[in-house]
Amino acid sequence: MSPDSSPDSSPDSSPGARGAATELVFSYGTLQSPAVQEAVFGTRVPGEPDAVAGHAAGRLRILDPRAVALSGSDTHAVLLASPDPAARVAGTVLALDAGQLAAADEYESGACVRAAVPLVSGRTARVYVPRPQSPEPLVHRRVVVSGLGSVGAGLLRLLDQRAGDLRERHRLVLTVVGAVDSGGAAVAAGGLPPAALLDLKGRGSSAARLPGAGRPGAGVAEVLAGLGEDVDLLVEAGPGDLVHGGAGLAAALEARRRGLGVVLANKAPLVLAWEELVGGDGADGAPVRFSACVGASLPTVDLARRVLVSASALRVEAVLNSTCQLVLRAVEEGAAVEEAVARAQRHGVAEADPSLDVDGWDTAVKLVTLAAAALGHRAALGDVDVTGIRGVDPAQLQATRRRGEVVVLLGLAERVAGPADGAADGPADGPADGWRLSVRPTALPEHHPLARMDAQETGVVLHTDVAGRIAATGLHHDATPTAAAVLRDLVDLATTAPR
Amino acid sequence: MSPDSSPDSSPDSSPGARGAATELVFSYGTLQSPAVQEAVFGTRVPGEPDAVAGHAAGRLRILDPRAVALSGSDTHAVLLASPDPAARVAGTVLALDAGQLAAADEYESGACVRAAVPLVSGRTARVYVPRPQSPEPLVHRRVVVSGLGSVGAGLLRLLDQRAGDLRERHRLVLTVVGAVDSGGAAVAAGGLPPAALLDLKGRGSSAARLPGAGRPGAGVAEVLAGLGEDVDLLVEAGPGDLVHGGAGLAAALEARRRGLGVVLANKAPLVLAWEELVGGDGADGAPVRFSACVGASLPTVDLARRVLVSASALRVEAVLNSTCQLVLRAVEEGAAVEEAVARAQRHGVAEADPSLDVDGWDTAVKLVTLAAAALGHRAALGDVDVTGIRGVDPAQLQATRRRGEVVVLLGLAERVAGPADGAADGPADGPADGWRLSVRPTALPEHHPLARMDAQETGVVLHTDVAGRIAATGLHHDATPTAAAVLRDLVDLATTAPR
Repeated sequence: MSPDSSPDSSPDSSPGARGAATELVFSYGTLQSPAVQEAVFGTRVPGEPDAVAGHAAGRLRILDPRAVALSGSDTHAVLLASPDPAARVAGTVLALDAGQLAAADEYESGACVRAAVPLVSGRTARVYVPRPQSPEPLVHRRVVVSGLGSVGAGLLRLLDQRAGDLRERHRLVLTVVGAVDSGGAAVAAGGLPPAALLDLKGRGSSAARLPGAGRPGAGVAEVLAGLGEDVDLLVEAGPGDLVHGGAGLAAALEARRRGLGVVLANKAPLVLAWEELVGGDGADGAPVRFSACVGASLPTVDLARRVLVSASALRVEAVLNSTCQLVLRAVEEGAAVEEAVARAQRHGVAEADPSLDVDGWDTAVKLVTLAAAALGHRAALGDVDVTGIRGVDPAQLQATRRRGEVVVLLGLAERVAGPADGAADGPADGPADGWRLSVRPTALPEHHPLARMDAQETGVVLHTDVAGRIAATGLHHDATPTAAAVLRDLVDLATTAPR
Repeated sequence: MSPDSSPDSSPDSSPGARGAATELVFSYGTLQSPAVQEAVFGTRVPGEPDAVAGHAAGRLRILDPRAVALSGSDTHAVLLASPDPAARVAGTVLALDAGQLAAADEYESGACVRAAVPLVSGRTARVYVPRPQSPEPLVHRRVVVSGLGSVGAGLLRLLDQRAGDLRERHRLVLTVVGAVDSGGAAVAAGGLPPAALLDLKGRGSSAARLPGAGRPGAGVAEVLAGLGEDVDLLVEAGPGDLVHGGAGLAAALEARRRGLGVVLANKAPLVLAWEELVGGDGADGAPVRFSACVGASLPTVDLARRVLVSASALRVEAVLNSTCQLVLRAVEEGAAVEEAVARAQRHGVAEADPSLDVDGWDTAVKLVTLAAAALGHRAALGDVDVTGIRGVDPAQLQATRRRGEVVVLLGLAERVAGPADGAADGPADGPADGWRLSVRPTALPEHHPLARMDAQETGVVLHTDVAGRIAATGLHHDATPTAAAVLRDLVDLATTAPR
């Protein structure tokens, strides 16, 4: 629009004659410059110094090349509300006629609108301010939580505590519409109150006892079928069954069959049905996430994938089982293995049946998952050479420490050279495509990143060809960080996957 | 399509009469089951055992509920070529008429096509194999590299070495169309050979000396203008000017003005023009990446953002300057500070003018960037309380070590309580929105993740409310890992940002 346009085209135009001063506009930027005025209005306009109180000046980037060419700058000054009432933005009050106002509108670009501000002089003037951005619309996702042990209950607690944060930072509303435990389920398409579920669990009861919503004996398949279209995401956090998959595997497959996104805290489905759940390359495209299964709150898979975008892994070392880490450190201080395990059980760190941890299979499961997700190497649990920590000799462990080494239960992925490498381009269906996986007690030099860890820390080290050595460790004392990893995955699926 | 459909509807149909056995189909899956045959064909069909050599059986997930209901399984067997010629997949040869073939086609779902395979018996039969996936199309992006020091040259080397990897893993072709150094530029819209540029740099010469493509004295603006539409991405890896921004800031702004994606290895533009380049919240939406500026190959920003999706940071600690780390470790062993700095310079680790590193400003720049990108806290360099390591006392450092503590140059972001927190929701234009940033020599207990690092390691520790403590460290001995971080960012922009 040129300064010659009809005054009627400006909604703020007054009925005054063209050329009459009809609007006061406060400028604190380039419109004060005589050169800019000449270019925008075809003339200089009268002005008086004034100021706005309670504001500070900021800069807004302008991408319109005409505005940049006119003002000689690619940013415009903008007003920002200041917590300090004494803050002042000084500028000039310009008297503009309707045509000039329209020209100023165009000059200030589409990002600005006019607002009325009181000036220090007592007058009120129009001022150009950034156009208010309407907030992103809220995304609603309905979640079924299967398994209400420490991780599932921890997730309910976080969903309750962080609802405001999820809404403001991620524009996301996550509603629990189903909760399943060993006693049955609670279901409500309109949403279950997390606090009521947590109260039941805290009293050693089942979600199935929730008044009005309880379904004693119901399993995930029944819950999902009953909800029909009224569910978007499944969290599977039930007990793992590494041999048959059990209810957790069935739940994950049923959810995928229904087209739901799945977040796994249960590792068994990944080991037994990687292809069906995640797909060949473990790409982010699959609506399945499993951050909590490989390092709890430590995002091992994300970190490795990020580093390996432009580098190749030569070797991956990991200490992924905190029970073993705790037990080995206790043995180092003089305890027998059984005694240290019993102590970890009493402190609630080790499971009632600690054999999966102590015999190395929990580490092996995590290693297999990490290899599939970050290295693109598919292996079965049976392909991993596994030795647990039951047989470690306390005297030997202490002697190792004295000579400056530390024994950890190391999960290791090593590249193997030779003919096995030739199969790396083929379908990922065999164990021998260039990587060898093992889990065994290993002495590391004291300065190794995994030797330097605390007794309750877990970690992973990537040795790469061109990105150096990257190490990451996570320290946590209860299941909340694992629940935080589940929530991270839920946010990820809810904000990226289509529904 | 039902078994009663016209045989003409199958392209493979033979002219034989309906009911006559016209096609041999080799099944190694559910089609061998009498129950499946009854359901698919309405009858059982005659079959003979046979096998395919040089293949192994795999599983393909089937999402069609009808096929799942029929077979009682949600996966179908598929043939995978095996490197072992002795591998065998056993199955049954079925004699199908055209109507039966059409029914089998439907049963095997849209993911499969028929192929001819030789059987061990010598016969040839049709077999269902997964429909071949056409590879993703290649994405081509043209890059200008500004700054050919160790990082810029390292990037050229990686682009050369990893071209095959980029093509196969990321379906990406990155072509260098411009290279700028202090002597001028080389420009070729069709692509510059990285090896020739590296050869010039290796001989201490300038890209401007490249025959046919050299432009002595040309700067980035000239190069970008000359290329016009023939460039997509700029890498700014020139020397930093933290006071005025210099050529690097001008280059980054010019590239953004032209709508190009920008990868920064030069930290100065981020500190001086964060809003203009990255925008308020440092979202991934902005086509600007700067991984190399905050931890080289250690993806500090990505890691922190990932963890903080579902958690809040309470405190961030970082050791981000390897020169200071090296100097402090040498001082601990008895060297004077100046002597240790001189030694690091002789080894090519410290800059000719080491003051930015030694006085703490390099760490402060990285801390400001990390805070903006991961914590959403905007601060100016002047808001950081900075003390370098020139004044550390060797005797005191050694005494600290003897009592089990280690002095590092710590970059620290601490939450501050009180009225300053109230401004956190306002525009991010002040220093006091809930975080306080500082850089100073700090004694850490020996078991702290940043105390346990090697002399050439850098790292970051996030203390969070619900995700525990996450620590990450990176060890590298030259500029290649930094170049790998630049390449990672380039891949990211090339594969996600629209052109």
